[in-house]
Amino acid sequence: MKAGSLAQLGEKGLLRHLTSRWPTRGGILSTGVGDDCAVLRVAGRDLLFKTDIVVENAHFDHRTPPRLIGRKALARALSDIAAMGGTPLAAVVTLGIPVGESPRRLAAIYRGLESVARQHGVALVGGETTRAAQLFLNIALLGECRDSAPVLRSGARAGDLIYVTGRLGGTQARHHLIFTLRLAEGRWLARNRCATAMMDLSDGLGADLPRLAEASSLGFALDPEAIPRRRGATLTAAINDGEDYELLFTVPPARAAWLKKKWPFATPLHCMGIMRKGPSTALAHGFDHFKQRRGRPGVRGTVGA
Amino acid sequence: MKAGSLAQLGEKGLLRHLTSRWPTRGGILSTGVGDDCAVLRVAGRDLLFKTDIVVENAHFDHRTPPRLIGRKALARALSDIAAMGGTPLAAVVTLGIPVGESPRRLAAIYRGLESVARQHGVALVGGETTRAAQLFLNIALLGECRDSAPVLRSGARAGDLIYVTGRLGGTQARHHLIFTLRLAEGRWLARNRCATAMMDLSDGLGADLPRLAEASSLGFALDPEAIPRRRGATLTAAINDGEDYELLFTVPPARAAWLKKKWPFATPLHCMGIMRKGPSTALAHGFDHFKQRRGRPGVRGTVGA
Repeated sequence: MKAGSLAQLGEKGLLRHLTSRWPTRGGILSTGVGDDCAVLRVAGRDLLFKTDIVVENAHFDHRTPPRLIGRKALARALSDIAAMGGTPLAAVVTLGIPVGESPRRLAAIYRGLESVARQHGVALVGGETTRAAQLFLNIALLGECRDSAPVLRSGARAGDLIYVTGRLGGTQARHHLIFTLRLAEGRWLARNRCATAMMDLSDGLGADLPRLAEASSLGFALDPEAIPRRRGATLTAAINDGEDYELLFTVPPARAAWLKKKWPFATPLHCMGIMRKGPSTALAHGFDHFKQRRGRPGVRGTVGA
Repeated sequence: MKAGSLAQLGEKGLLRHLTSRWPTRGGILSTGVGDDCAVLRVAGRDLLFKTDIVVENAHFDHRTPPRLIGRKALARALSDIAAMGGTPLAAVVTLGIPVGESPRRLAAIYRGLESVARQHGVALVGGETTRAAQLFLNIALLGECRDSAPVLRSGARAGDLIYVTGRLGGTQARHHLIFTLRLAEGRWLARNRCATAMMDLSDGLGADLPRLAEASSLGFALDPEAIPRRRGATLTAAINDGEDYELLFTVPPARAAWLKKKWPFATPLHCMGIMRKGPSTALAHGFDHFKQRRGRPGVRGTVGA
């Protein structure tokens, strides 16, 4: 391998580098690393498989109410199931515990986890604890797609319209801990064949939309004015804050009127642009854990739909 | 909850406390927390679900060859699949990376992981990275039982004989990094209905046999002389070292002669004792991550079969 620092590689570059030689297995349909969940074909079912972690001082800190730490840990993984149009089944939890950590805090974290699990029908089936230098909570989640194929990031076609649920930005204060899951919306979109490609917005529209476009081998044109913002959020915030956990998806133009008419949820729905061949419009780059912000930008081009 | 320190609770007490209110889910058969893997009934199949972690300075250190770190991380989880008589299918990996960690070391860790995955037909289907205070590698593993029911810890009956594969103790030097997996043995025992209960020895016979006995609501009588030891290992080492990753299982007496005659593996097989109602023979307590060694012992009784 080439020598290089983590900052140079970036999170995406590191993952691509590390996983480039990963073995696959006969009889298992894998989407490969990079979609919201892995897809496994087992006994004629499409199972979804996901691992996700929250780490103290990266995803929460000592001021975060413990129940919300547990809530966030599971909800993040559930959001990835939503983004495939899936239904969650079961989770196993790995808990890293620093010396001197309070059992009372840990219990409250687990109460938060249980509450989200109950709400969304997730069986908590296994736990593992280990001593660690900092508190962390890893969730491995199993789900499935029933009555629909999993919606991948790679299914968008040129001409498809770009939609988002909810409103973006202004997520730092508390939203990232208490965001509403879009599981029902994701399932509805998948079952009604409204979404050709879908993902959840975890790193921000500015980082995530280019990923969906790249997975679909397309560019996009986005109307910045059409990006729905949370109350008080600037356009920059709506593009860059991240942790929106809204669904970003593409809709065939022939389905757009039907979608608008039949959408059964109170959740807002906004069309922001269109997928196209060729270069994309510019968006400031979203949050990437390892990428130096002043490094080469991830997206180039000119703003405007 | 009652206040208490981690040391007072112990790992087992902590897990029991944290998971006592975990939700289950209709249509999913869960063994509950405490068996080697969770069992999920999906589409008429018994899926096995497991999460396991290795953490720097707890499970390996800076002197450990990086390939063996990756090997160990996956092999530990595979050993739990073996202990249910299962076949592994797919894994997702969470990697915690400290600032300044070398991509070269990470790549070597992943090569070790890939090598074990290839050897045992495991598809590596998803990865997640996060910044962390110390290096860790969490593996979530999905497997299944075909042509046999999962062998639980709770199936032993009074009069069943206690067997172990391989030899125990002397594991600290290098064995814990390069142990041989018993997947084929576990499957064979399950399919031939030789094992009524089974688990893998990760914390040492002295800690693990009492767990199997408790899960089966039985005691045991063990002949210390019959415990097979690795070359140079004392009896104490064979009982307490841990990280043997051998299969511990119980065999109905009517199957013992057949087992001895038909066992198709080069792997040694030893009968060490018998399950029984009433109290167990004493074994020094095995390794428990959180338990203070000088606290109350986990097993009481008298030595001797």
